[in-house]
Amino acid sequence: MRGYDFEEERVKQEVLRIGAKRVLLQLPEGLKPEGPRLAKVVEKTGAVTIVSADPCYGACDLAIKEAEGLGVDLIIHYGHSKLLKYEPVPTIYVEARAVLSVIDVVEKALPLLKGWRRIGLATTVQHVQALDSVRETLVRAEKTVVVGDAGRLEYPGQVIGCNYSNVKSIVKDVDAFLYVGGGRFHALGVALSTMKPTVVADPYSCEVFSVDDEAEKATRQRWRSLKVAQKVKTFGVLVGLKPGQRRLDQALRLKLKLERKGKVACLFAINEVVPEALSEFPTVGAYVNTACPRLSIEDAQRFDVPVLSKNEVLVMLGEMSWEEFCRKGLFES
Amino acid sequence: MRGYDFEEERVKQEVLRIGAKRVLLQLPEGLKPEGPRLAKVVEKTGAVTIVSADPCYGACDLAIKEAEGLGVDLIIHYGHSKLLKYEPVPTIYVEARAVLSVIDVVEKALPLLKGWRRIGLATTVQHVQALDSVRETLVRAEKTVVVGDAGRLEYPGQVIGCNYSNVKSIVKDVDAFLYVGGGRFHALGVALSTMKPTVVADPYSCEVFSVDDEAEKATRQRWRSLKVAQKVKTFGVLVGLKPGQRRLDQALRLKLKLERKGKVACLFAINEVVPEALSEFPTVGAYVNTACPRLSIEDAQRFDVPVLSKNEVLVMLGEMSWEEFCRKGLFES
Repeated sequence: MRGYDFEEERVKQEVLRIGAKRVLLQLPEGLKPEGPRLAKVVEKTGAVTIVSADPCYGACDLAIKEAEGLGVDLIIHYGHSKLLKYEPVPTIYVEARAVLSVIDVVEKALPLLKGWRRIGLATTVQHVQALDSVRETLVRAEKTVVVGDAGRLEYPGQVIGCNYSNVKSIVKDVDAFLYVGGGRFHALGVALSTMKPTVVADPYSCEVFSVDDEAEKATRQRWRSLKVAQKVKTFGVLVGLKPGQRRLDQALRLKLKLERKGKVACLFAINEVVPEALSEFPTVGAYVNTACPRLSIEDAQRFDVPVLSKNEVLVMLGEMSWEEFCRKGLFES
Repeated sequence: MRGYDFEEERVKQEVLRIGAKRVLLQLPEGLKPEGPRLAKVVEKTGAVTIVSADPCYGACDLAIKEAEGLGVDLIIHYGHSKLLKYEPVPTIYVEARAVLSVIDVVEKALPLLKGWRRIGLATTVQHVQALDSVRETLVRAEKTVVVGDAGRLEYPGQVIGCNYSNVKSIVKDVDAFLYVGGGRFHALGVALSTMKPTVVADPYSCEVFSVDDEAEKATRQRWRSLKVAQKVKTFGVLVGLKPGQRRLDQALRLKLKLERKGKVACLFAINEVVPEALSEFPTVGAYVNTACPRLSIEDAQRFDVPVLSKNEVLVMLGEMSWEEFCRKGLFES
């Protein structure tokens, strides 16, 4: 897979320095095809090397339990920056920075930004090193550029699937956002968190486009889900099992809130929030998801029943207005 | 769900006796719809009660890590008998015995057994209490009845998805097997482990049928998979992460064997061996599965590439003959 820096030399040196005898490689879906090749690189150090084949969508999902179960003494986690405060198993993060230029596609995006002067930048860890040159390109086009840093992620301007604190921190200072990176997923997150016009400059496909229609559609879909859930009697409250998705206390509080309003609520523990798992419980008419906040939005069409976020439950129960919910952004936890 | 004994009173008393404050309920797919109702029963003791929504296909998959992650002090595992030698979290097994009679359907199965005199009995834990009356029914029909007990499962005559030691222990003493229970899955296991004619008496559907054609088809399919794998260069060796499916040493030995024959082999750790997970690694042409031995057979059609068992690898590498492999039974580990 060209286009990413897998830091093979650093990885080998770190494995040797730590003296790891058994190593677990964890890659997100997009980088997984590289797993077997990278395992052969690490094997050269003499360490037994195992590739995790389970789904991984973020650093919230660090394979700690898996590593412990296999007696692994080092995890190498690719494609995400550090998220957990503490790793019980030594962990190296290989951020898989992109090695391709983004400037051409950013220039191509300029016409889409012509209505706005103050532009906020957002990107994934793969492109944080390119933000300075993106800024210069925009300044030359007479834009004012703002890069947010709320201090909760590793890099200024960085966004991850469930955390848009950096763009939210500058929402009042910008007219629109430019997201530099692949695909629609993170850009949609920017739009839904900020309710600002959001343009994508995708250096992989060399395409530029707005996600505003998609964001509006997703917002309407959340409203519909919430209205359907309002009429439901029995709720399931999902507690994630992944290290960065485990919020039992929040789940207990939401269960109590639902019960006080006359609903029946049952707690469910779950690793992967997938439609097939939820469809095993036909008596449950709607779910409240305290695990990964993106799931309900990305996969809404795939679920047979509403899957609400914490704040959506509050709106449903009349404890938060729809306007406040939208102002906080659809992911605010 | 009628037809099963969920032992609700015993469960409540045990929760109170143990003084559990946080309880995790784990049910196999077929019983999962009962989860929310059973949670409400356990909640009456005052314990916080959580239902596991992740897939569960056997007691090999006891939710120990999940329980530890959630600070649970008692697991209630439904639908299977005890399998692990030791549970790090206190565990109650509720075997979910069937409360329906099997005699009518066993009588209906008699014509299918008419060619054979010596009949071996097999069933799941749901019906072990019915084996005495099944025996009587067959004896009245002038059959000699044999119930095996190899000492590796909880009850004589019992089979589970991956362990047919009880029927294998009597394979020389019988002409055919009668499996009493629901569906084709366990009966197919009996046929593939013993290579004996196997008749099903299903008390749920009241149907009686042979699984011999299906077993022959599955055996031929295994042969084809093995032949396809022989030409593959790069293998993935799967290590299960579930408590009763973790065989890293076996995986390491198989990797070495493959490498000695000039193959490239890479270790993969995996919770759920599903086609979507394996399809993330397009450079891998075949897998060796040391996790759940049934998966390759049940789901063979769903996988894009061959997924071989340990013994199938030995046949492929010329270290075991096909005849010996069949004689040992397709699940012999």
